[in-house]
Amino acid sequence: MKELEDRILSEGIVREGDVLKVDSFLNHRCDTQLYDHMGAEWARLFAGEPVDKILTIEASGIGIACVAARHFGNVPVVFARKTESINLDGSQYRTQIHSYTHGRDYHVIVAKRFLTPGEHVLIIDDFLANGCALNGLLQICEDAGVSVTGIGIAVEKGFQPGGKSLRERGYHLESLAIVDSMDPATGKITFREQ
Amino acid sequence: MKELEDRILSEGIVREGDVLKVDSFLNHRCDTQLYDHMGAEWARLFAGEPVDKILTIEASGIGIACVAARHFGNVPVVFARKTESINLDGSQYRTQIHSYTHGRDYHVIVAKRFLTPGEHVLIIDDFLANGCALNGLLQICEDAGVSVTGIGIAVEKGFQPGGKSLRERGYHLESLAIVDSMDPATGKITFREQ
Repeated sequence: MKELEDRILSEGIVREGDVLKVDSFLNHRCDTQLYDHMGAEWARLFAGEPVDKILTIEASGIGIACVAARHFGNVPVVFARKTESINLDGSQYRTQIHSYTHGRDYHVIVAKRFLTPGEHVLIIDDFLANGCALNGLLQICEDAGVSVTGIGIAVEKGFQPGGKSLRERGYHLESLAIVDSMDPATGKITFREQ
Repeated sequence: MKELEDRILSEGIVREGDVLKVDSFLNHRCDTQLYDHMGAEWARLFAGEPVDKILTIEASGIGIACVAARHFGNVPVVFARKTESINLDGSQYRTQIHSYTHGRDYHVIVAKRFLTPGEHVLIIDDFLANGCALNGLLQICEDAGVSVTGIGIAVEKGFQPGGKSLRERGYHLESLAIVDSMDPATGKITFREQ
C-alpha cells in the first residue's frame, strides 16, 4: 500500500536491533485517516471472504481494528487483553506470548463468550516480526473453534520469520507494507514489491 | 444517549464493589457501530468547539477515540501509554495514576512531540469514576500547554466523585450515560436524566 510505505519512508525511524519506530502515525499518535484507508485496503484484499468478527490484541491493534471494522460492515472487534492475573474459572481462553521487544513473557486472555465456534474471524495487528503475538491469537482461535479467514497486518518485517512461517502454514496473510531490509546507519528502508 | 443506556440496561452486569461490567460491547468486545453512534453524539455535543486532536489512554479508550475521530474530521488520536519504565531523556510527558480497580499506581507517558502547545484537545475515555485517569491526562495537557476543549466519557459513575469535581473545575464534560445508582443484589441501574 503506497500511502503506508510513503509514510514509513518519510516518518519511520530505524534503530539498532531491528527497531522501526512509526509511532508518529501508527501506534502512539494514530493517523485515523490513514487507518481508514488501511481498512479500505484490507476490505479490498479480503473481498468476498467471510468476516463475522475482527480479533486483535491490546494496545496498538485496537484503534486500527476498530476503524477497519467499518469497511467490513461494522462487525464487532474483540481485543485480547494482556493480563498479570489469570481467571481460573474457565471463562477465558488464554495463552502465553513472548515479547522480544520487552524480553519477557506475558499472558493474554479473551473471554470465551466473545468467540463463537464456527464464526469467521479476521485477525488485525499493527506489526508482524517473529509472529509471537499472532501465534498466540491463532492458538486462541483454535481453542475457540473459530475459522480464521485471514490476517491483516500494517507493517511486516519481512526479514524476520513470522510472515514466511504463517504463509507456509496456509494462512491468507495481507501485510500492507513489507520491509525487506532497513539500515540503522543510513536510515534506508527497502520494501518488498507486492 | 438512549442507545448506550439501553445497552447498559440489557447487557451490563452489576457486581459488588461498584463494578459495572460492560465488556460485551464497550471494552473487550467492541461494538463498532455503537462506537460510531457515540462519536456522532460527541460531535453534536461539542459542535462549534475547536478540536485539533483527541487524547485518550490505553487500552479501552483507543478504539472509542479512533472511531469518534471520523466525526471530528479525522483528527489524529494520541493515546497515553501505560509503562513500567520511564525514559529520562525529557522527551516524554509523564504522570502517575492510581488505579482503584487494581489497587496500585502506574505511570503513563505521552511523547512530547505529539502534543503541540496551543492546540485544542478533546479527551475521550470509556469510564469516569474517581477521575484518577482523567486527572493524569489533564496534568499532561497542562504540562504540554495544550487547551482542553472538553472531555467525552462513555459511562460516568455519577455516585463517585470524578465527574462532579471536573464540572466544578469548569471542564466541559459530556458523559453519554451517567449511572446514579446501581444495586448488585437486584441488578437495578438508574441513570441521571440529561
